[in-house]
Amino acid sequence: MSLKIAVLKEVGSNERRVAMVPVLVKRLTKLGASLALQTGAGVAAGFADADYVGATTVDDPLRVVADADIVLAVQAPSAAVIAAMKPGAVLASFVYPQKHADLLEPLCERHISAFALETVPRISRAQALDALSSQATLAGYYAPLLGAVHLPRILPMMTTAVGSLRAARVLVMGLGVAGLQALATAHRLGAITEGYDVRPETKEQAQSVGAKFVDTGVDGRGEGGYARELTAEEQARTQDALTLHIQQADLVITTANVPGRTAPRLISRVQIEGMKPGSVIVDLAAESGGNCEGTVPGETTTVGRATILAPLNVPSLLAQHASELYAKNLLSLLDLIVKDGALSLDLGDEVVAGTLLTHAGEIRQPAARRLVENVTP
Amino acid sequence: MSLKIAVLKEVGSNERRVAMVPVLVKRLTKLGASLALQTGAGVAAGFADADYVGATTVDDPLRVVADADIVLAVQAPSAAVIAAMKPGAVLASFVYPQKHADLLEPLCERHISAFALETVPRISRAQALDALSSQATLAGYYAPLLGAVHLPRILPMMTTAVGSLRAARVLVMGLGVAGLQALATAHRLGAITEGYDVRPETKEQAQSVGAKFVDTGVDGRGEGGYARELTAEEQARTQDALTLHIQQADLVITTANVPGRTAPRLISRVQIEGMKPGSVIVDLAAESGGNCEGTVPGETTTVGRATILAPLNVPSLLAQHASELYAKNLLSLLDLIVKDGALSLDLGDEVVAGTLLTHAGEIRQPAARRLVENVTP
Repeated sequence: MSLKIAVLKEVGSNERRVAMVPVLVKRLTKLGASLALQTGAGVAAGFADADYVGATTVDDPLRVVADADIVLAVQAPSAAVIAAMKPGAVLASFVYPQKHADLLEPLCERHISAFALETVPRISRAQALDALSSQATLAGYYAPLLGAVHLPRILPMMTTAVGSLRAARVLVMGLGVAGLQALATAHRLGAITEGYDVRPETKEQAQSVGAKFVDTGVDGRGEGGYARELTAEEQARTQDALTLHIQQADLVITTANVPGRTAPRLISRVQIEGMKPGSVIVDLAAESGGNCEGTVPGETTTVGRATILAPLNVPSLLAQHASELYAKNLLSLLDLIVKDGALSLDLGDEVVAGTLLTHAGEIRQPAARRLVENVTP
Repeated sequence: MSLKIAVLKEVGSNERRVAMVPVLVKRLTKLGASLALQTGAGVAAGFADADYVGATTVDDPLRVVADADIVLAVQAPSAAVIAAMKPGAVLASFVYPQKHADLLEPLCERHISAFALETVPRISRAQALDALSSQATLAGYYAPLLGAVHLPRILPMMTTAVGSLRAARVLVMGLGVAGLQALATAHRLGAITEGYDVRPETKEQAQSVGAKFVDTGVDGRGEGGYARELTAEEQARTQDALTLHIQQADLVITTANVPGRTAPRLISRVQIEGMKPGSVIVDLAAESGGNCEGTVPGETTTVGRATILAPLNVPSLLAQHASELYAKNLLSLLDLIVKDGALSLDLGDEVVAGTLLTHAGEIRQPAARRLVENVTP
């Protein structure tokens, strides 16, 4: 077994996930790799070191990466850990260089081939590597449950000995992977569901999970499957059409993200102030600033008679399943870059090339390159 | 309008419910009654004073009850409030004299006709008054949601681009109103559900909400639709059969109550210590001590790799709907005891007689009478 894979213990606050789960260790062995685990890496996700059968454990993160050919992590490791990596090794994790520009220098200096999971191309072939999607699925499932335990009413219609309780109305704004999953879960729980997105092609997707589509008449399709930013006039038209739906809802879930930017504002304070007593908003975009005026990332706030929940790192709250899916995404990447027990990076492969942030001492993604050009005069 | 009805603001900790909701005020008017509301009575449930159209508001609880013919509350009012009531008036609330024996003296002294909602007879005719059931329905709905937001995994089976996640296993112990509703909600969310109760007749009920019934071979039918206490030998047999089901479960919900007693122990510490990493127990019997060894009422504790949630007053967390159902239960009582705009208590009516705790200066329920006989030498 020549190929050495290291799995780091996450150090970020609120981060309970781990980049490899015990049930998948056998698949690493099949790739011809051995696993070195930083001690306690899986504990927060419910996996003891002993569950990783056949893995060696190393307490010091600098030592666990020192002779690894491939380092797996959820969040980007620190500059110090990167600087301790073997020159030319592979790193696979979320990186987000716009938040961690300081990592680009050690990644280049050590000639690390860094796969930034947040940049997996959005094409069919790459779906199995798409960690943003797998994690968003879980966040979308979680959001209506979180909302439901904060609502002063139940979601389903219920018939009792003294008459019926009406079903709650749930509005989901932003119908990507998370939004559609949120609609599906709210529908499962018996709520009356409505979905809204600036991309009209989401209408059928919303309907396929039992929701009514809120049509504002504005087409905001952008690039790469994301929405574009709307003009001021378009925003005003959209807002007018949405106010009624927001204020009729018992639970609103917002999920709109534009990659690399502050999250778009979907709901104004005035709209929230007109919401029903006890209504709840779950703002899944809190990580990038939130979709609501009044959102405080990581906190629960009250605006008018509504409560805004703005949880951070929601996938991490489902750490067992989030780690399992994330680890499977990484295995799909390894399947692409490991051949016959050795690293083999095919830069002609669209998925490999699209996900590689740094390689052979160079920054390969233009957006990240601009970050460095901006800071060095 | 001769009949005066007063609604108190609740003072208990964790109590957000209110005994009357705005949408039902018209029905009081139809009964020929006027409503006096203690200021802010509905605020915690999301109802402003102004929402109670036609009601007068009075700030002081002693004043609001002073000239009321009927006083409505969720929890029993204090002895001071009872002492301020009009002699011969009606009080309708949960009373639980075993916890509040000090209330019996003022109730008798003022000749209050006190309807203790927890003692509504369990017969078909009385279902519309059955506040224990209406509130338990809501608690049962809430329990799996609370569990789900604390689990590190999702409940439904889910197919993703990198394979499937298995559905979670949910075991509900105690299949009364709350337990069956918990099973129904967990089933709705896509979990694999199992139900257990010492009363074999609950088997079909569990199956009707999509659950498998865990048959231990012990018949524990008791009186009044509740379970009896099991013998030590029966308990041991039951425990043996249940251990596997408890330890296979991702989420266990316990709901077993024996009226007027400490909740039965359903799960031992040893059984919990064998549970899966990340597993969760929601102990709905926390109010009466809990069904699990390790339950701390009102707190979240960890035993082995399991988390035990022991929320108090769960219906109050769904204050809007809980208040609505409770208020409808009270209206059903008023329909029985108000004729032509005046009080008219028919002590020959089984429901009236069964629910009356005190009347005309006397304690009418034997269990409560024994409480007073015990404390006065």
